[in-house]
Amino acid sequence: MNGAESLLATLAANGVDVCFGNPGTSEMHFVAALDRVTGMRSVLALFEGVATGAADGYYRMARKPAATLLHLGPGLGNGTANLHNGKKARSGIVNIVGDHAVAHARFESPLSSDVEGIAAPVSHWFRTSRSSREVAGDGAEAIAATRDGALGCIATLILPADTAWGPGGPVATALPPATPKPPQPEAVREAARALASLGARAVLLLGADGVGERAREAASAIAHKTGCRLLAEFYNARMPGGRGRVRVDRLPYAVDAAVEKLAGAKCLLLAGAADPIAFFAYPGKPSELKPVGCRTLTLAHARDDVPAALEALRDELGAVATPMASAPRPPAVQALRPAGTLNADLIGDVLAAVLPENAIVVDEAVTTGRAFGPRFAAAAPHDWLAVMGGAIGFGLPAALGAAIGAPGRPVLALEGDGSAMYTLQALWSIARESLPVVAVIFANRAYRILQGELQGVGAQVGGPRAEAMLRLDRPALDWVALAHGHGVPAATVRTADELVREAQRGFASGGPYLIEVVL
Amino acid sequence: MNGAESLLATLAANGVDVCFGNPGTSEMHFVAALDRVTGMRSVLALFEGVATGAADGYYRMARKPAATLLHLGPGLGNGTANLHNGKKARSGIVNIVGDHAVAHARFESPLSSDVEGIAAPVSHWFRTSRSSREVAGDGAEAIAATRDGALGCIATLILPADTAWGPGGPVATALPPATPKPPQPEAVREAARALASLGARAVLLLGADGVGERAREAASAIAHKTGCRLLAEFYNARMPGGRGRVRVDRLPYAVDAAVEKLAGAKCLLLAGAADPIAFFAYPGKPSELKPVGCRTLTLAHARDDVPAALEALRDELGAVATPMASAPRPPAVQALRPAGTLNADLIGDVLAAVLPENAIVVDEAVTTGRAFGPRFAAAAPHDWLAVMGGAIGFGLPAALGAAIGAPGRPVLALEGDGSAMYTLQALWSIARESLPVVAVIFANRAYRILQGELQGVGAQVGGPRAEAMLRLDRPALDWVALAHGHGVPAATVRTADELVREAQRGFASGGPYLIEVVL
Repeated sequence: MNGAESLLATLAANGVDVCFGNPGTSEMHFVAALDRVTGMRSVLALFEGVATGAADGYYRMARKPAATLLHLGPGLGNGTANLHNGKKARSGIVNIVGDHAVAHARFESPLSSDVEGIAAPVSHWFRTSRSSREVAGDGAEAIAATRDGALGCIATLILPADTAWGPGGPVATALPPATPKPPQPEAVREAARALASLGARAVLLLGADGVGERAREAASAIAHKTGCRLLAEFYNARMPGGRGRVRVDRLPYAVDAAVEKLAGAKCLLLAGAADPIAFFAYPGKPSELKPVGCRTLTLAHARDDVPAALEALRDELGAVATPMASAPRPPAVQALRPAGTLNADLIGDVLAAVLPENAIVVDEAVTTGRAFGPRFAAAAPHDWLAVMGGAIGFGLPAALGAAIGAPGRPVLALEGDGSAMYTLQALWSIARESLPVVAVIFANRAYRILQGELQGVGAQVGGPRAEAMLRLDRPALDWVALAHGHGVPAATVRTADELVREAQRGFASGGPYLIEVVL
Repeated sequence: MNGAESLLATLAANGVDVCFGNPGTSEMHFVAALDRVTGMRSVLALFEGVATGAADGYYRMARKPAATLLHLGPGLGNGTANLHNGKKARSGIVNIVGDHAVAHARFESPLSSDVEGIAAPVSHWFRTSRSSREVAGDGAEAIAATRDGALGCIATLILPADTAWGPGGPVATALPPATPKPPQPEAVREAARALASLGARAVLLLGADGVGERAREAASAIAHKTGCRLLAEFYNARMPGGRGRVRVDRLPYAVDAAVEKLAGAKCLLLAGAADPIAFFAYPGKPSELKPVGCRTLTLAHARDDVPAALEALRDELGAVATPMASAPRPPAVQALRPAGTLNADLIGDVLAAVLPENAIVVDEAVTTGRAFGPRFAAAAPHDWLAVMGGAIGFGLPAALGAAIGAPGRPVLALEGDGSAMYTLQALWSIARESLPVVAVIFANRAYRILQGELQGVGAQVGGPRAEAMLRLDRPALDWVALAHGHGVPAATVRTADELVREAQRGFASGGPYLIEVVL
């Protein structure tokens, strides 16, 4: 068994049994090992950002890390943006990055680079293996490093080529993760006192596992008992939604709207959430969204056992689960077939109506998707995955990974046309793996969000050169052709009627499908 | 004038008048400034690796830096691989990277990241501006930092949003670059003594500006006078070629072939070249390619005035320019029209025959292009740009940049299908700018180079899982559809006859064209 084989066996033995890879020469022994070590599913990506984004999406559904296989510093560099997103999502990922053989690395050669330097900003843990006999042990440490409390971390293991081809050590076992921090009685009592005394002047803000079903039921009982306001963070790594589930509004993205939402709060109780901060700074607007003088209490940090903390608080308050109001159903599909032009509201209605049971929704719709939230509350039960690090190019790769992390569940990827272009190569991997991913591209042919942000930051607008930098319409991208080029069937729609028909066709196909919605 | 305007004016005033950008919210003031400051051509890219690769290609033709405009850490991360290539090519580039406003950066927010940490591995120089009044001065220092001797460097200026929107300082002037180091008399004399005494046991190895026309004529005279062997490095940032120019063979890529080429050498004289090192290490093969016991002399380093050093050596030896043997012409196009299957040799013959005068050839053909070198020696005069850092995804972006850096010159981009997929979004920018770029995609539907490397590194091959990781044929990429999706006209060819017809059509169009060669 060589080093690569010992690593592959260690990964598989510790439950890391999916690898999203884009290998090169320095990873060839790892690739060859795929046929001699059982238990690893290897998924080829044509661009490294696809591999890292897929690993993020995979973790969110499987709740265990996948590996990525990347080619030296530049390959890791290409994966950086989606590792940034994965880090902010607290996803667990094991990056395996090949490098030059140790004896070769001292020479200046085209691919020599500072791999550790590239790894550091996006990794909680990184190491360069020093010998082939240590690779398996390093791999086990990397796996252990992907877990901190309830959530995941990014671990990057750099593998010089000779540590892959030299003799390997024994398969290693990763230390089991530490149990997440349980509810802290003093924090629970203090939270109970604050909520009981403040009523609607308190806001219970949910984040991380605090938005899960179990946590939300406890949070709902707490809000019902105390009268506190209940909100979730705007972005959530995985948020269950749809009919029959407790609905929690999200804090708005826009600074003014978020400030208004929190107005009058005297206490902000954080359950897995962070003190809310504006996405960007804007001249003359606050970075901190809570009112001046509002006190912050932390019931549980994101990596703690947030659901247990909420249940402890519920019990401390003597709150009980309340019967759910029966959720509204979305409009029947038959009622959604006008031939008129589509707008964001109507698109939301259609997609909520046709969403299959137990779907996964990957949201990178940026502007068009803003109106979808309330509509999807009436849709079939689903999980909603948002980009957590603000780096666009997350959606299609995450859809790939989510479909593999939750086999059999249909995936709906909501994509702005600008966003989808960063990592469109994911379509090929989705086709290759025959995954049930329906991608809907909102073709407004602009960086629409930036057309708003240009004014939001106080830039004086009006000139043709600035405007040209925000428009994608010359030439227009043809998403049906792009999909076909990657082996994915596709159609263009312009009306609600067409969108209903094509979305139903896509989900019924059980395979990949792309719908270009021309706006 | 705000900070962004003062920076834009400083860039333009110092000759940095092209910007390849993919902006976001934090760069909106820079974008708005495009309409209020004259002299900057702004080219939109849909992915940051397109912007950085274009800046590399631009520098190689214009011999001055372009700016890139990138969105915080993840945007810079997406540009890393082609910055790595640009760094190895010694191209000058000024990266402008927006970041959160200074007061906002202390908060954890989705896009907060270690921008300097991401910049460091791919930048010779980087700085975060501290106030809007200092931005212009920082920009001038960044421009000065893009030059070291005869060649370029990567400078990264990080611009917190408030340094863009606050009041700017005066437009600044960059210090002029220092003159490259002139010929060193002692090195010239020592080189002359070695060559005069060793004859064919000496090898004169050219690199950097040592492969330019003026340098090659001097090198040719030196070789003619002393009998030394004359070679160029395998990869060159810009190598003139074609009829009527001194031909210099390149050191082969494969280790065994390179070792054989240098066999018997007692002295390696470096003129802008580095001591030759294998691209990768392979078990049982040397990293250093020159024979054991071969002495190394440096006539001039890459950043020195290499052409002047070669001319000084020529004069020291009393060598004179020799009349060129009349170069062979490529086969007439009429002779190249069989209907049979294309292979690499025939493709090289066809492309050499149809290449327009004064074209720029961007080479990322990896395996298919290996056979092209000798054939293009007989083609019309051209410049040949190779990927210098081994990070694929260089070709289409570099073609974009080269076409803008040398206006009016036709560009031929030679692309492996695997390579082209990394940054295919460049096609859209090429279409948008209506550039005369003919891209030829060699669709062998495999990572063909890796199929060889798998054996080269001694990995035991044979299994279906490893093989699947190197094949791109399930589903097949449809390059005509991908081109159309980006707004580029395209055709598929399978015979020499069809390749001649479509290449002539592409060059005659004066705009972008893509040819998929199915192998």
